[in-house]
Amino acid sequence: MDHKGRLQRLQQALRQQRFDTLLVTHPANVSYLCGFTGSAGVMALSPKGATLFTDGRYIAQAKEQVQGARVVIAPKPPLAAAAVRLAKSRGRRTHVVGIEAEHMSVASRTRLSAALPRSFRLKPAPALVEQSRMIKDGEEIDLIRGAVRLGAGLFDTILENIRLGTRESDVAAEMEHAARRAGAEGMSFPTIIAAGQRSALPHGRASTEPIPEGFVVCDFGVILRGYCSDMTRTLYVGRPTAEARLFYQAVWEAQQAGIEAVRPGAPVGQVDRAARNALKKAGLARYFTHSTGHGVGLEIHEAPRIAAAQREVLSPGMVITIEPGAYVPGRWGVRIEDMVVVTDSGCEILTPTTKELITI
Amino acid sequence: MDHKGRLQRLQQALRQQRFDTLLVTHPANVSYLCGFTGSAGVMALSPKGATLFTDGRYIAQAKEQVQGARVVIAPKPPLAAAAVRLAKSRGRRTHVVGIEAEHMSVASRTRLSAALPRSFRLKPAPALVEQSRMIKDGEEIDLIRGAVRLGAGLFDTILENIRLGTRESDVAAEMEHAARRAGAEGMSFPTIIAAGQRSALPHGRASTEPIPEGFVVCDFGVILRGYCSDMTRTLYVGRPTAEARLFYQAVWEAQQAGIEAVRPGAPVGQVDRAARNALKKAGLARYFTHSTGHGVGLEIHEAPRIAAAQREVLSPGMVITIEPGAYVPGRWGVRIEDMVVVTDSGCEILTPTTKELITI
Repeated sequence: MDHKGRLQRLQQALRQQRFDTLLVTHPANVSYLCGFTGSAGVMALSPKGATLFTDGRYIAQAKEQVQGARVVIAPKPPLAAAAVRLAKSRGRRTHVVGIEAEHMSVASRTRLSAALPRSFRLKPAPALVEQSRMIKDGEEIDLIRGAVRLGAGLFDTILENIRLGTRESDVAAEMEHAARRAGAEGMSFPTIIAAGQRSALPHGRASTEPIPEGFVVCDFGVILRGYCSDMTRTLYVGRPTAEARLFYQAVWEAQQAGIEAVRPGAPVGQVDRAARNALKKAGLARYFTHSTGHGVGLEIHEAPRIAAAQREVLSPGMVITIEPGAYVPGRWGVRIEDMVVVTDSGCEILTPTTKELITI
Repeated sequence: MDHKGRLQRLQQALRQQRFDTLLVTHPANVSYLCGFTGSAGVMALSPKGATLFTDGRYIAQAKEQVQGARVVIAPKPPLAAAAVRLAKSRGRRTHVVGIEAEHMSVASRTRLSAALPRSFRLKPAPALVEQSRMIKDGEEIDLIRGAVRLGAGLFDTILENIRLGTRESDVAAEMEHAARRAGAEGMSFPTIIAAGQRSALPHGRASTEPIPEGFVVCDFGVILRGYCSDMTRTLYVGRPTAEARLFYQAVWEAQQAGIEAVRPGAPVGQVDRAARNALKKAGLARYFTHSTGHGVGLEIHEAPRIAAAQREVLSPGMVITIEPGAYVPGRWGVRIEDMVVVTDSGCEILTPTTKELITI
């Protein structure tokens, strides 16, 4: 992985934006920059060098994983250790320390500020690492393809296990077991198997309820070699009525409209609108109660968000989900989700699974 | 669950500490106070009432779960929605808004501050909810017992599956599958199955490496009805040498010493010291590179931390782990962990599993 290139580009940005140091505290950003995946790590990055601070639990792991940065194993919390080191580097002029304002707690900021001499100034830094992470390089896209392939393969296990009366959690159990057996490091988020009326819960984690007749929303993903997959398919247990088929068809068309709007240069709001308008035509817009998608990579939810109020513009190499849904509380819900990668001319759908309504 | 009592006690504390409003943003705290388990929820609590703000994904779930608070479904992020509502409540004098400084990001605080008129003052609140959560009531302890029992039962699945040459991840797969089948909502953290040299990684998540001869650290837990379990046992694959047996014995004695130090009124640092001193006698103190334990409840890691620098004092109803370990990088590691509940006279060990060294 190109950790050195990433660090160098970030160091250049720091120089341009006149930060003396950037404190990277968000674990996914730390991992992106130097490969370290421990739960406690802070990277202090200056235009001249990079140091990773971690604690005694991670001595061996840091040695094995970290690339492009010095490692300091500290007997205190990593942020406190970084502050001590910074304080020693004091020069004559003001030292501007960039912080990740979206990820640092108010309390951490207060402690950090107290630990630094007055000549240090804490300043929220632009989301430089997140912006870099939005555009995946070839190696990352290959890893994501691998995760998506493994994830999609699990849909067969779901199909084999969803039966009238089976518990949602048992379907999840079999699927997650297959994921582990296939080498997944874990699931990328709590598995959603939401059947019958529960399909109207957009985030209905698999419960111990038995599956009744009706829609079953299956939303799941794996982590493979650090990268996440995410997909949703909605099945029908029993014989769907004409109304159910139309409802499903409307969401599918919205999903297709969203995908067709994905191309480099398109504002994300436009993609969201494309999906939303399709549901509007079907009179279902008010049942689409979440945004159309999100970036996926080292994190299951990362930039860009595909939502009305967002200003991001799509670029080649971005990997996003397109996942409109419609949910009628107390009745039913449908969601269909693919992962796509933005290409030079449009997008490539990564998720290989059919979107025809499968009935069981 | 006693949501109303919790809210009332918190409201009394707010009154005493002269907060007009407390914004509860940490998901586990929100869940503790009103039962809501969605990923996006902010509770605005005043001495007079409680309101939960969430978004359109959680309409049905909020209706089903929330107790003791009004629910507002907002078209914007919950914190922004809470700010709009607060701004409308403006009176003549300064309105003091408590924030959870350990859980609110610097960026969220900035946005919140910008959304409120000048007559509002944001002030870090003491960790009132966390303090309340430290002491579990009878209903909570019963739920924790249930989670611990389910978790401990999984150890049999581990024993059935750990064999020379089996992949660590396959052991995790079978164990997690059994957990789901037994009704667990999920694992409380990424399963650690760390064999051979990897046993020296205190946080060695199950990898796809085959299990060699030597120690295997197994650290795992489940979530059942919202509450977490956590336990560690270390096995030996092959015939342990006398040195390995002594090493194991030293960690076991340290764990026993830690447990014996648990009683109401004991400072947590004293418990940590008891475990650490035992390892010191065995000449292994430098290999014990983490703290002795932590609280467990709605979160896998919660207050109090059982560590040298902490000032908390144990009280009846606290549920904590006691989990010393020793790790020789590149060679081997051992950790043994139980969950215990502090009683009126000492503690009760919740984890029922033997600590004799099991060899396979």
